[in-house]
Amino acid sequence: MRENYRDLRIAILGGGTVGAQVAHRLLEAGDELGQRSGAGLELIGVAVRDLKAERSAPIPAALLTTDAQSLLVGADIVVELMGGIEPARSLILQALQSGADVITANKALLAEHGPELFAAAAKVGAQLYYEAAVAAAIPIIRPLRDSLAGDHVRKIMGIVNGTTNYILDEMDTKGLSFDQALKAASDLGYAEADPTADIEGYDAAQKACILSSLAFHTAVPLADVYREGITDISASQMDAAKRSGHVIKLLAICERLVDPITHQEGVSTRVHPTLIPRDHPLAAAHGANNAVYVEAEAAGPLMFYGAGAGGLQTASAVLGDIVSAARRHVVGGPGVGESTHAGLPSVPLAHVESRLQISVIVIDQPGVLAAIAGVFSEHDVSVETLHQSGAMGPAGSEQTATLVIQTHLASEARGQATIEALEKHPVVVSIAGVLRVEG
Amino acid sequence: MRENYRDLRIAILGGGTVGAQVAHRLLEAGDELGQRSGAGLELIGVAVRDLKAERSAPIPAALLTTDAQSLLVGADIVVELMGGIEPARSLILQALQSGADVITANKALLAEHGPELFAAAAKVGAQLYYEAAVAAAIPIIRPLRDSLAGDHVRKIMGIVNGTTNYILDEMDTKGLSFDQALKAASDLGYAEADPTADIEGYDAAQKACILSSLAFHTAVPLADVYREGITDISASQMDAAKRSGHVIKLLAICERLVDPITHQEGVSTRVHPTLIPRDHPLAAAHGANNAVYVEAEAAGPLMFYGAGAGGLQTASAVLGDIVSAARRHVVGGPGVGESTHAGLPSVPLAHVESRLQISVIVIDQPGVLAAIAGVFSEHDVSVETLHQSGAMGPAGSEQTATLVIQTHLASEARGQATIEALEKHPVVVSIAGVLRVEG
Repeated sequence: MRENYRDLRIAILGGGTVGAQVAHRLLEAGDELGQRSGAGLELIGVAVRDLKAERSAPIPAALLTTDAQSLLVGADIVVELMGGIEPARSLILQALQSGADVITANKALLAEHGPELFAAAAKVGAQLYYEAAVAAAIPIIRPLRDSLAGDHVRKIMGIVNGTTNYILDEMDTKGLSFDQALKAASDLGYAEADPTADIEGYDAAQKACILSSLAFHTAVPLADVYREGITDISASQMDAAKRSGHVIKLLAICERLVDPITHQEGVSTRVHPTLIPRDHPLAAAHGANNAVYVEAEAAGPLMFYGAGAGGLQTASAVLGDIVSAARRHVVGGPGVGESTHAGLPSVPLAHVESRLQISVIVIDQPGVLAAIAGVFSEHDVSVETLHQSGAMGPAGSEQTATLVIQTHLASEARGQATIEALEKHPVVVSIAGVLRVEG
Repeated sequence: MRENYRDLRIAILGGGTVGAQVAHRLLEAGDELGQRSGAGLELIGVAVRDLKAERSAPIPAALLTTDAQSLLVGADIVVELMGGIEPARSLILQALQSGADVITANKALLAEHGPELFAAAAKVGAQLYYEAAVAAAIPIIRPLRDSLAGDHVRKIMGIVNGTTNYILDEMDTKGLSFDQALKAASDLGYAEADPTADIEGYDAAQKACILSSLAFHTAVPLADVYREGITDISASQMDAAKRSGHVIKLLAICERLVDPITHQEGVSTRVHPTLIPRDHPLAAAHGANNAVYVEAEAAGPLMFYGAGAGGLQTASAVLGDIVSAARRHVVGGPGVGESTHAGLPSVPLAHVESRLQISVIVIDQPGVLAAIAGVFSEHDVSVETLHQSGAMGPAGSEQTATLVIQTHLASEARGQATIEALEKHPVVVSIAGVLRVEG
C-alpha cells in the first residue's frame, strides 16, 4: 500500500434518495471508509436538478451544484445515481473517457447501453461498477463477475423485483386479489404511483438482461428478453398452485442451453410468473425481499437473499463499489480489505449476553419449581419460558422430572453462575444440557 | 485491456482432490478462462507428495513435481491447496515475497497465521485470495471484503460446517441419536475417519476467526474464539427445541458489540450449538449445506446459501480467485468480467422447453376429459397432472368445470399451439390462465 496517496476525488451525480444517502455516509464515515480503501475519499460535489429540493439526508449546500458536467472535471470516481437514459449516458461516457472509474445503479441504462459503456471503459482501462443495479445490497454482480468467474453458470432464477414479490406473497399468504394486493403495496410505499414498470415485468427484464449478459459473457439485447407481468394472476391460479404444492413467483430466468430447434448453444432470458415448488429455496423469499438462485456446473446451486430495494440498501452497494474502486486506485487490487485498522478487542464470552435454554433433571417433589425459580432470580436471570415434562428417572430410582428453562438475555457470567448453583442444589439430579438461543 | 499480454504462469501446490480438479479444469477450460481473464493462463506444474498417487482428475505426468520450492520460481499466481500449517506457510510467504499473488483454501493456516500472510502480501503489493477457505463455492469472502466494504457489519451467523449440519439435520428430521447420525454421516463420506475437527467445532472456529477478522477489520486471534461442539446434544434437547419452535444448528457467530462490562466496543467470535427459530432463514439450510447470514447496518439482513464443501465446489471458488488474480495482473481491476467473448445467440422463447400449468374452463359434460386429453396428445404434449374442480359457471349459465393441467417438458411452440387449439375447442369456455413451472 502506497503511503501518502493523494485523496481520491468523488463526484456524485444525483441527489435523490440514494444519492443523498451515499453523500451523507461519505461525509459521516469518510475516515473509516478511507482506512478501508487505503486512500482518503474526498466528496467534491453532488450534482442535482434543484438546489432547494428536500434531501433524504443532509448535504452541505456548498457541495451542491446543478452543473454535472463541470463536476466531472478532475474526478477519480464518478457515482451516477440520476437514473434514466439521458443525460446519465452522456455523463458516464464523458467520465469514463476522462479515465475516471464509474459506479452506477442505473439498470435501465445498463440494459439498453451496457455494451457501449463497457467498451468505453475498456478503451481507457477504467472500470464500471454496478453492484447496486440488481437486487440492491444483495451481492450478486460481484459473485457472478468474480467468484464464479472460473465456473460455468448454467441457470439463474431471480426474484429481482420486490413490488411484485410483495403482491404475489400477499395473494398467496392472505388470499388477496391482485388489485387488493397492489393497493396494499401502494399503501406501504412498495409500489409507485404508476406501477407499470414493476407489475408488467419491465424492471425485472432489465435486471435479467444485466444478469444474463454478465453470467454468459454475451451482450444480450434487452429486446431479446421475453417479458410477461403478473397483472393477470387470479385467485384461482393461486389456489391451483397451492393445491399442486407450488407458489407463484415472478422470476427472471437466465439460462444457457442448447437450442432444441437449431441445436446451437445459446442463451434464453425471460421474465414471467412461474410456479415453483413450495420447498424450493426461492419460495422462502417473502414480502418485498429479493432472492437470486444460481446453478453453476462446479459450485452447484447457490442462493443469495435479502432486501432488494430501498435507499439505504442501494447506498450500501454503491459505497461497497466506491471502496472497491478506491482500492483499485491504490493497490490495484482488493488487498487492503484485509486491513486491521479497527483493531477491536475480543469480548470474552463471559461478558456476552445470551439467552440460555437449560434442561435440568430434578427430583419430582412439591416445591421444586419454586426452588429452581429462586435460583434464577437470585442470580438476576429472568426466565422467559419453563416447560416441565414427565418423570424420566431410571427404573427403581427416585421419581424425577425434566425442566426446560429458557431465559431472557443475561450475561454469560450470570448464566454460568446460575448453572453452577443449580448443579449444587439439593433438588437437582443433573443438568441435562445447556444451549444458547439466537434469532 | 493490453493486447498480447504474456501468459500468466500458475503453480499449484497440492495434488489432492481440490488440487487435481483445479489443474484439470485449467487444462480443459484454460482458453475460456483465459478469455475471461484477458490473459493466457499457463499451468506450469503441480507439486505433489507422491508422483505415483491416484488423482481425482487426470494430470499429465510432466506437470507433476515433488519440488514445490522450485515450482515457485517465476510463478505469477501460486495456488496453495496442500492444507496444514507447514510447509504451506513457508511456501506462501516465499511466493508472496517473490511478488506472486497467492490463492489458498487453507482455513487452518489463515486462522492461525493470517496477519503474517497479509502483512507479507501488503509489503510487496501482492494479493492473497481465499474465497475457498470458508463455505467453498458460496461467495462470502468477496461479499464481505468488497460488496459490504462501505457498510457496517453488525453480526454474522454462519452454518459453516457441513458435517455437523448434516448430523443435526438428521437428528432433527429423522429423530436419530447423535451417534446414529454421525454414523450416517460417515457412511455417506460427510464425516472423516476422525471427525473431531468437525464435531467439536474446531473447523467452524477457524472459519469464524477468518470471517470475524475480515468483517470487523480486526486481527481476531484464534485463541479468542469460543468453541463448543455438538457431541453432547441429546434427543431430548432436539425434542425440547421442536416444542419451543426452534431448531438446533452449530453456528459460527461473529458480532460487533459494546462489551456490557467494559463498555468498550469489541468483537465476540464464538462457535456453539444454538437454538434458532424454525422460520429463521438459517433453519432452511438442510443436509450438508452451508448458509451464512449477515446483518449490516444499511444492507439489512443478507443470506448466502449453498454447498459448503466438496472438491468440485472448492475448485470453483479457487478458479474464481485465479481469474480475479489474472484480471488484476492484466487490467488492474475486474473490468474484463464484462467481456462478451462467448457471444452466444439468444434462444427465442418458442424454442425453449417449458412445463406449463394451463387452467381451462370447460362445459361440464360427459367426454370432456377425453376431448381435452386428446388435444394435448395431438400436439405431442404429455400431461403430468390433471385436476378437475367443481362447477364454477356464473348462475344461470351452462354448468362448467375448471381443469388445471400440468404438462411435462414441451417446447413453448408446441405448448402455445396446444393452447390455441384448446381455445377453439367446442367444449372449452375459456383459458383461465397459463403459467410456467420451474424447479
